[in-house]
This record gives sequence, structure tokens and C-alpha cells, in this order.
Amino acid sequence: MGPATAAGPTVVGERRRIRAEVLAARAAGRRIGFVPTMGALHAGHASLAARAAEECDDVVVSIFVNPTQFGPGEDFDRYPRDLRADADLLARAGVRWIYAPDAGDIYPPGDATRVVVAGPALGFEGAARPGHFDGVATVVCRLFAAVPADRAYFGAKDWQQTLVVRRMVADLGLPIELVVCATVREPDGLAMSSRNAYLAPDDRRRACGLAESLERAARLWSEGADVPTIERDMRGAIEARGIAVDYAAVVAAESLAPVADGEDAVALVAGRLGTTRLIDNRLLPARGGRAGPRRDREGGA
Amino acid sequence: MGPATAAGPTVVGERRRIRAEVLAARAAGRRIGFVPTMGALHAGHASLAARAAEECDDVVVSIFVNPTQFGPGEDFDRYPRDLRADADLLARAGVRWIYAPDAGDIYPPGDATRVVVAGPALGFEGAARPGHFDGVATVVCRLFAAVPADRAYFGAKDWQQTLVVRRMVADLGLPIELVVCATVREPDGLAMSSRNAYLAPDDRRRACGLAESLERAARLWSEGADVPTIERDMRGAIEARGIAVDYAAVVAAESLAPVADGEDAVALVAGRLGTTRLIDNRLLPARGGRAGPRRDREGGA
Repeated sequence: MGPATAAGPTVVGERRRIRAEVLAARAAGRRIGFVPTMGALHAGHASLAARAAEECDDVVVSIFVNPTQFGPGEDFDRYPRDLRADADLLARAGVRWIYAPDAGDIYPPGDATRVVVAGPALGFEGAARPGHFDGVATVVCRLFAAVPADRAYFGAKDWQQTLVVRRMVADLGLPIELVVCATVREPDGLAMSSRNAYLAPDDRRRACGLAESLERAARLWSEGADVPTIERDMRGAIEARGIAVDYAAVVAAESLAPVADGEDAVALVAGRLGTTRLIDNRLLPARGGRAGPRRDREGGA
Repeated sequence: MGPATAAGPTVVGERRRIRAEVLAARAAGRRIGFVPTMGALHAGHASLAARAAEECDDVVVSIFVNPTQFGPGEDFDRYPRDLRADADLLARAGVRWIYAPDAGDIYPPGDATRVVVAGPALGFEGAARPGHFDGVATVVCRLFAAVPADRAYFGAKDWQQTLVVRRMVADLGLPIELVVCATVREPDGLAMSSRNAYLAPDDRRRACGLAESLERAARLWSEGADVPTIERDMRGAIEARGIAVDYAAVVAAESLAPVADGEDAVALVAGRLGTTRLIDNRLLPARGGRAGPRRDREGGA
């Protein structure tokens, strides 16, 4: 580990140019990995870049704080930006290109096009942040056009986002493979997030309540508890840390619909500490089998 | 001219396969032209395919009656479909591939993604046919992913559609060049359209009123008439043929906004004959210069 060297990533600002670079590398037989980010990079992003570097010949990381995925009153203006520190981290990860466009490169003058996803974008973050996933789908569609990579890497921490992007890629028929990587955590369990930097020290100590609630959910799930019981327990664990709960839910992992027997589930939580909003989640592997009795009836009142 | 030969186009039903074919041809250095259609092909489509064949090494024509661009109560069910006749016409035009997908190939199970364009999609056809251009943008985005051609060919007859597609391509950064080709007309001036087949003989005779109104508009425009005068004249000419006018307008050709001095204009008309709705348009080259007097003030009341 050290500072960026002369062999660090090439920073490219124009989509036309990054596209040409990626296509030339692919034409030369190289496999390209792409990690879209909003910068303020942490160990979670580094793990995505490392996985991409492991599986691909060249890695592109985009750094773009996308205005269209922030709602009015959200933290677009104060969102942390430090391209120099980000470039150092990516140099150490062996990244070849940083695509760091201006807003005008992604949203040209007169821009009037949005990509809108329903389905997995409804509810949870979609309900808490109206327009958020339209902004995500819109920017990711543009980034995938600018960076025609073989694979794109996303963190499981934004679980619903991975479902929205996967839905868009399937529906539009975009020629890219998605790879979802495990959430990286602080020693006390807090999921890595650029927004953790907002937390005052006392709030930072209490923020682990989200991860604690997910640990408890995983244990209860494996013990056979029913969904309402697990959700009540999660909510209690989060509130016990002084976090205002936005939602604490156990739903089907792929559809976010009510979970059926034999289906993988996901526990999703969102909460607020002061002006900072944090989310986290944990996959709960399918329990019971399709052939087994319906647990929801067994446990019904 | 003759029936399709054994060397006629290859019909491909899956986006994965047409994409692979096009990419392989491009990798071999061939230039690919693409003509998206809804089938029921006529001389207008043939002229697009011929232009594509002239400028490119291989031509793909897609035939897909796209359900999402029809509104409730529109003519999706009765829209003419005749793949055999279409294939014969395209064989004579030297087309290499016909991409004729099922709805499920374009709209996979669980589909939840729409591409929505504002700007040039507002007003005129966008107002008369709510959701129409969302359907157009959604399907063209998918078709461009399935058929990664160098150039795509559209008819000027659907002028507003060409603006919507151009806006989407610019905004999403899609790597395809658009070519807009002149409208092909019947001897009496009626613009070629698959919907002309709906017209009863008497309505067919009266349908030339749309083209007549555009002829008159072009003459008045070149003589310096103001926009309201031209619009009144067009409306009168259309109604004189017993056509119910949806709109008859002269606007800026690129934005569909009120036309300014020194700007290219377009005359747009839409009307109904019985249950058949027809549209047409004519470009009106810029008159006066930026340095000239403001005609709208000169002619003002």
C-alpha cells in the first residue's frame, strides 16, 4: 500500500473517449470490469475493484455524484467529493481508468430522457426516496453505454439497487453481466458507506444497531421464527440504539414480495441518526422446502 | 423485381442471436445498417432499406408490432401483419437479416422498465396519443441493444418520432448514427403509410388533403406569410377534403417550439378519416436571416 504511482489510473472525462478506450481493449481480447461509484471511496468500493481486477484484464471505475438520484432536501450538495484520495485508493487496487465525467457529459444540454423501472424499485428505498431509482436507472443506463464492459460490479449493501439494475439490464437487453459482491463492514458490524462520514461520534457508536438487528434476524430466521416476529424484533433492536426506523422487513430476496416457503429472503433495514440516513440488509437463505408444510400456515394465529 | 430467392434474408427471432450476428459482421470490418419497422412494408420502408444497403455492407430490418406504443382503443389488433410479403420485399432490397422477435423477446417476463422522453415528445403526437412516445423510446432503446448497428434509418414521415429517437440517443449516449430519409409519396401526394390500407376508396381519394395542405404551406412560407396565416390555410385545406383536423401547425423543425427567425420550420398535420388517423409533415427551410428584421413583428397585427 502506498501513494499512487506514475502507473496509476488514467482519468477520462468524456464518454466518447472512455468508450473508445474500452472498445479498443476489448477488440484486443481484453476482458473489462466496470465499477460505477459516486466517489468518496472506502474499503467496500476497494473490494469491488479488487474483485473486478481478479476476474478481468482491465478495470474502469466511474466517479460521478449523480444529481438525478438525489431528492430535494437530500445530501447532494454535501455528499463527500475527493477525487485525489479516490485516485490513490484506485491506483493501489490496480484500476486502469477512472471515468470522472462532468454532469454535462452524462446529461447533455436539453437532456429529456429518463429510464424508469417499476417492479423491484417500488417500496422500501423507492417509497422513502421518490425518484431515486429513476435516477439510478437513468445514470446506470448511460454509464453502461459509455463503458461497454464485460462485467459490472455492485455492492450487496444497496440490495434493492442491485435488483433494479438487474431488472433494467434484463428488460433493455443490455449486454453486460452483473456481479453482486458482499457488503464490507466495520469491526462493529456497521456496513461501509460514504455516508458514515456524516455521523457524529455518539451516533457512530449507535449506528451498529442496524447490523445488530440483521444478526438477530438471521438467528431467528434459522430458528424458524415467522416473519412478523422477526420484523418486530429487528425494529426493537434498532430503536434500542436510538435509531429512528424507516423500515425493518423480511421479504423475498429477488422480488421484495412477501416471502414464500423455500425462497431466499432478505432482511432490509433503514434508519435515521440525526440528519443521516443509513441502510443495510442481510440475505436469509431459503429454509424449508417446496415439498414441506407451509410454515406461514403452521405458525398462523 | 421478383419473388424472394434462396439468398433472401435470414429471419432471426432472438435478440441474443441477432446481436451476435451483427457483432461478428462488425468485427469482420463490415458496416451495418438497421431499419426498425412494424412490418406491413411499403415503398417508404423499401427506400429506407435501399438507402441502408447503399451506405452499409449489411442491412438488418426489424419487424415488430410494438404493443407499448399503441394506446387503449388504438389499432394494435388490426395493424396489418404479413411477414411473408415483408420478407419478399426485403429480399429484393438486398437485406441480410430480418429480426422478427416475439413480444417476449423484447419484453421479457416481469418486464418493468420504460424509457421516457420529454422535450420533443410533448405536444402533437405526444398529446394526441398519451404514452405513444414512451413506447417508441422503450422499444427503440431495446432494438438498438439487440442490433448494435453503425447507422439506423428512419422515415421523415414520422418527424416527431425522429426527434424523440434523436433526443434519446444523445441523452443515453447510444453509439448509433441516425439517418432520416425523405417521405415517399403516392402519385397524388399521400404519404406512404401502412395505415393507408385501412382507407375505404372514397376516404382514400380525400386523404390527399393532408399533402395538399403541406404544399400550400410551403408556398405560403416561401412567400413570407406569417405562421397563423399558414396554419389557418392548412386547416381549411384539410377540412375542405372532409378530414377532421387533429392539428395543423408550423413550428421549429428541431424543437417543435414556436419558430424563430432564421430557423428551419416544419409543418405538421394530423387528421382523421373515419376510424383511420393519418399524419404528415413538410420541412420549411429557414427564411430571412438572423440579421434580418423580425418577420413576426413585421406581420403582427
